[in-house]
Amino acid sequence: MAVEETLLNGNKILQDPQKFMFGIDAVLLADFAAKGIRRKDKVMDLCTGTAIVPLLLDTISTASSITALEIQPESARMASESVALNNLESKIEVVEGDLKKVDELFPKHSFTVVTCNPPYMSANTGKQNPGEEKAIARHEILCNLEDVIKASDYLIKPDGSLYLIHRPNRLAEIFYYCRKYNLEPKVMQMVIPFENKEPTMVLIEARKNARPDLKVLHSLIVYESAGKYSKEVEEIYARQKLVLE
Amino acid sequence: MAVEETLLNGNKILQDPQKFMFGIDAVLLADFAAKGIRRKDKVMDLCTGTAIVPLLLDTISTASSITALEIQPESARMASESVALNNLESKIEVVEGDLKKVDELFPKHSFTVVTCNPPYMSANTGKQNPGEEKAIARHEILCNLEDVIKASDYLIKPDGSLYLIHRPNRLAEIFYYCRKYNLEPKVMQMVIPFENKEPTMVLIEARKNARPDLKVLHSLIVYESAGKYSKEVEEIYARQKLVLE
Repeated sequence: MAVEETLLNGNKILQDPQKFMFGIDAVLLADFAAKGIRRKDKVMDLCTGTAIVPLLLDTISTASSITALEIQPESARMASESVALNNLESKIEVVEGDLKKVDELFPKHSFTVVTCNPPYMSANTGKQNPGEEKAIARHEILCNLEDVIKASDYLIKPDGSLYLIHRPNRLAEIFYYCRKYNLEPKVMQMVIPFENKEPTMVLIEARKNARPDLKVLHSLIVYESAGKYSKEVEEIYARQKLVLE
Repeated sequence: MAVEETLLNGNKILQDPQKFMFGIDAVLLADFAAKGIRRKDKVMDLCTGTAIVPLLLDTISTASSITALEIQPESARMASESVALNNLESKIEVVEGDLKKVDELFPKHSFTVVTCNPPYMSANTGKQNPGEEKAIARHEILCNLEDVIKASDYLIKPDGSLYLIHRPNRLAEIFYYCRKYNLEPKVMQMVIPFENKEPTMVLIEARKNARPDLKVLHSLIVYESAGKYSKEVEEIYARQKLVLE
């Protein structure tokens, strides 16, 4: 059963606690992408789920329009309802569809920015979630990394950018497929839970047809101490007007 | 004019202060590679310069033999003299030659490990060094990243490993070419000058024909404070019996 939650940026989102709830990943991705998004950008959010990234980008970016693509009917329906609840129909469009068929859904090179918080795990690795919808959100069942990057290449116009959040263990594959599909990795930031620890997430910006030269930022530390977010993460939540749990 | 220096592991090395002197890069690469090198491994060090990596590996690894390939005659000559000076001719063989022609120099798949501290900069980027030999050591004049990785693929037998140190801004290209040439990136460690700073170097292990799954280690911090090495770097120098300057 879907429940309504109020994002502390004022927007409301419908989510189903039995299924997939948004986490810090979406918040970090939206903040990372917002830094590069300019007025008049046309944004596409792939694997949007319940449209959390578009609902966050609405607050912190100057994007002129955001399209949210989701393959799972139930998630797409909740995403549409959330958009309506916030009267954002003129800015955020939810499309139910398969990113493997973007060429049937959208004109080529019709976006300047793509954001994506894709399923992290290869189809046959890790503990599979019991619920099908959760499994689809976390495992590469309906699309894999190459599908996401290939679709991004199709959607992004020259000089446009792809913003991704993913797991560090997939980094070599991410860079490989980005370069294979004309998206040159330009900025990378590792996310580490505590100082001096191994990263648990990685943020990447890849730019269409750019020349090779990757800027690696300092690692973003999530927690200053157990249960206490770092100043940098507090500032990210503050920018998005989200209250920390 | 070449001068003799004593590495504090007991080995001596001939270097020319007017040309290219070894730095912390070689020390970090040798330590990183030594962790994976096993008894009976046949090691090839590409772009060996004055053979600093082989001379360090002699102390801290159990490699049964090390081949050191260098294209510049003067560096290769100094490398040979250093090997003779330490009576290591039975263990370290210096070969003067071009890694772009490894197929004329060595049988295919005749090594289990390749190490390389290659020129970091693309041919036409950054400040070019005035001396030709220094320029060749730092810029991709006589070989580029793809040449190094292609040669490694030729040299390394199945399940063998390539250990590289490079600049983080080349990371996307490194991963791309590794995967193109059957060398799957398996371990990565960023090297940061101080806590919370952007990395200045990156260490990579790629394994022949392995399945994709990259282990990203915590970042290695070089300095605890200005002029004072971190405990971790002190330990690396201690393992190599090198005294810190």
